Amino acid sequence: MENRAIPYKIYLSEEEIPKSWYNVRADMKVKPAPMLNPGTLRPMGFDDLRPVFCDDLIAQELDNENRFVEIPEAIRNYYRMYRPSPLMRAYRLEEKLKTPAKIYYKFEGSNTSGSHKLNSAIAQAYYAKKQGLRGVTTETGAGQWGTALAMSCAYFDLDCKVYMVKCSYEQKPFRREVMRTYGATVTPSPSMGTAVGKKILSEHPGTTGSLGCAISEAVEVSTTTPGYRYVLGSVLNQVLLHQSVIGLETKAALDKYGVKADIIIGCAGGGSNLGGLISPFMGEMLRGEAEYRFIAVEPASCPSLTRGKFAYDFCDTGAVCPLAKMYTLGSGFIPSPSHAGGLRYHGMSPILSQLYHDGYMEAVSVEQTAVFEAAEEFARAEGILPAPESSHAIRVAMDEAIKCRESGEEKTIVFGLTGTGYFDMLAYEKYHDGLMTDCIPTDADLQAGFAGLPSQPAE
Amino acid sequence: MENRAIPYKIYLSEEEIPKSWYNVRADMKVKPAPMLNPGTLRPMGFDDLRPVFCDDLIAQELDNENRFVEIPEAIRNYYRMYRPSPLMRAYRLEEKLKTPAKIYYKFEGSNTSGSHKLNSAIAQAYYAKKQGLRGVTTETGAGQWGTALAMSCAYFDLDCKVYMVKCSYEQKPFRREVMRTYGATVTPSPSMGTAVGKKILSEHPGTTGSLGCAISEAVEVSTTTPGYRYVLGSVLNQVLLHQSVIGLETKAALDKYGVKADIIIGCAGGGSNLGGLISPFMGEMLRGEAEYRFIAVEPASCPSLTRGKFAYDFCDTGAVCPLAKMYTLGSGFIPSPSHAGGLRYHGMSPILSQLYHDGYMEAVSVEQTAVFEAAEEFARAEGILPAPESSHAIRVAMDEAIKCRESGEEKTIVFGLTGTGYFDMLAYEKYHDGLMTDCIPTDADLQAGFAGLPSQPAE
Repeated sequence: MENRAIPYKIYLSEEEIPKSWYNVRADMKVKPAPMLNPGTLRPMGFDDLRPVFCDDLIAQELDNENRFVEIPEAIRNYYRMYRPSPLMRAYRLEEKLKTPAKIYYKFEGSNTSGSHKLNSAIAQAYYAKKQGLRGVTTETGAGQWGTALAMSCAYFDLDCKVYMVKCSYEQKPFRREVMRTYGATVTPSPSMGTAVGKKILSEHPGTTGSLGCAISEAVEVSTTTPGYRYVLGSVLNQVLLHQSVIGLETKAALDKYGVKADIIIGCAGGGSNLGGLISPFMGEMLRGEAEYRFIAVEPASCPSLTRGKFAYDFCDTGAVCPLAKMYTLGSGFIPSPSHAGGLRYHGMSPILSQLYHDGYMEAVSVEQTAVFEAAEEFARAEGILPAPESSHAIRVAMDEAIKCRESGEEKTIVFGLTGTGYFDMLAYEKYHDGLMTDCIPTDADLQAGFAGLPSQPAE
Repeated sequence: MENRAIPYKIYLSEEEIPKSWYNVRADMKVKPAPMLNPGTLRPMGFDDLRPVFCDDLIAQELDNENRFVEIPEAIRNYYRMYRPSPLMRAYRLEEKLKTPAKIYYKFEGSNTSGSHKLNSAIAQAYYAKKQGLRGVTTETGAGQWGTALAMSCAYFDLDCKVYMVKCSYEQKPFRREVMRTYGATVTPSPSMGTAVGKKILSEHPGTTGSLGCAISEAVEVSTTTPGYRYVLGSVLNQVLLHQSVIGLETKAALDKYGVKADIIIGCAGGGSNLGGLISPFMGEMLRGEAEYRFIAVEPASCPSLTRGKFAYDFCDTGAVCPLAKMYTLGSGFIPSPSHAGGLRYHGMSPILSQLYHDGYMEAVSVEQTAVFEAAEEFARAEGILPAPESSHAIRVAMDEAIKCRESGEEKTIVFGLTGTGYFDMLAYEKYHDGLMTDCIPTDADLQAGFAGLPSQPAE
């Protein structure tokens, strides 16, 4: 193997951790639509949101103007414990695929939370502590967000109450133990401890829960317990802001070696990783400084961008949250139980939804057996055992690299490897044993989801 | 938090990955005793070992003279995918402990195998491939070695047969799935597929296996299957040689910032991590260039250094392997079933055994409830979820830092954080639920183990 000018891992120094987050909304001509009060259908302002969210985070949520938001020193100090994350050159995967394409991936799995979620969790915990709160509540599905938040709360000595979708709670007892190790309380959702949980359980006895339902419970507890607020790991504008560290570091590392990306690929559930990864590149494109292809990859079993509607919808099942305008499958949509891993939220980040609607981004959906096939091939080539979510991006990165082999084009492909699959081995086992199936919703399934959309405000 | 001259993570560049391994035997005045043929009690030479081990690895095993062994370029290229590993400054732990001590840890868990084992696995797979072999056999207990070897064999396209101690196979199905993801065959040991397995099962029906028994099976298969050899993840001289990358990088990183270690601490099962970490520092001490305190930390439930005998013993239960002179509890010793995690081998690396015997190293044993207490405190402070094995070193590093708080001494403590605990959450759960007990062998237990020692050669 010849010596290479570009190392396998491009590490930046701790001093190169970004000093500000980048707010892509500042460069969007059409801003994401504001959240609405579900009763009045009027935009929610700062004061409307205060019972649910921390003050500083509301300010970030509503800020469509400032291009940069300074990262407080306490958060940068925490980032130093696990960032900058490496940008890896996939030399070995390129060889295996016999492609002239150059493949890079930004690896966000080198921390105990096992994913990029920590980038926003530590920020949200910091602002909660700064406000003098006692604790925060949240929901978690696959468990990455809950783990990241539990770690962050341990760091700032905050109480942490996690509502974990019941089927994940039962299938992933070890995720729960990780959160307990960091001192969090983990409750399977729906639970009998909240009014909304009781209601859902009485209407759907034996339900194994959903993210939308867990959100409703976490929000209820945050608004009824003094000194608590609710925090969320995806979808929100503030989360994409925090996650912009991924893209800023990626860009800095590429710039360091004079590499220009052609295609940037990320998996998309609520949009936290994809939005964070592409934001600074998208900003360049919005300002007319560069051209990129952006590809959002979602599961065929939960296809909000590729088969959803762009409309105002409830963010949660219990309809206690504001309405958000986004690509959505309807707040009642629940992916097939045979869908493994995360990326199971019914909606998509309003920022990414607007960008997609305006033609700045592509979206594709992939089936999970093809995703696990890519995951295994990637693991054997690159060593890293990828999370099922991340493997959606791997699948499409490999597909694009194979197209380059056929066309002879030397494109530069960058994708986000959001995390590791250590807690997903049950899904890998199913795949190895040939028991994994694809699970694509029918048109009738989708229509049932759309039927639950609220009435839309006048344009 | 003030700005710090030393970063949280000291990363070296890929070009700073060592170009040679360091062989501490070259600097030892008293060399480790040679392996003996169990029948003749005569030292095993190159030709005696060829049926079991790869040729190049035998040469390394027997080499007591050469101080440095060049690392082949193919291995360095693989190292580039996950090395240099970071040397972390535990600022946050220091604060929590209110200690004037400066604590550093070399973190070897940032790769999918989850531990330092990969450093030797990739080397052993490389030499097997170089020799034109079809595959290798091995055993695994906690699963870290098997995972590392499976990854390495996938990389070099070698077949990999892993014999996994049955109780681990059953308690850690996800470890098994990781190995399958990399294409390895995993068999619970003892199995009915080998003569030695059948014998053990007929004598001890229902046994949940032991490392010594799994070694016997793996060795039998390697010697009876054309094109196969046996590889081992610890104890052997060659393994300590490969693992010297840990110590070489640690020393390079400390030198870069002008830091001199006072105490170097590692957990000790078979000795692979401890030997690798301390070797270059030990070499300085053996050559009279520097002074250090070295502390080996072992579980109270498997105390080979602190309560074992320094004697020739079988390396495996089936007595198919050569005899090695080492601190041992007897090849029939099996730790209590309530012992969690690895570090359960009955013997200790002959190199480390000799150094300990000659007074160059200290050893302490710790109880597992105290170990998990340290693990949890470390996780909450530093973010990383440590493996139970690694947490033995954490426990003693914290104890030494607390002594510094009491004495006011500003010592520099370095310890090896060998891996992550993602696959050990069952043990964490037991600890959280108050169900974990300590399990210290009685003197009678030890006497029973010693009774199985072979007759010793004349001095």
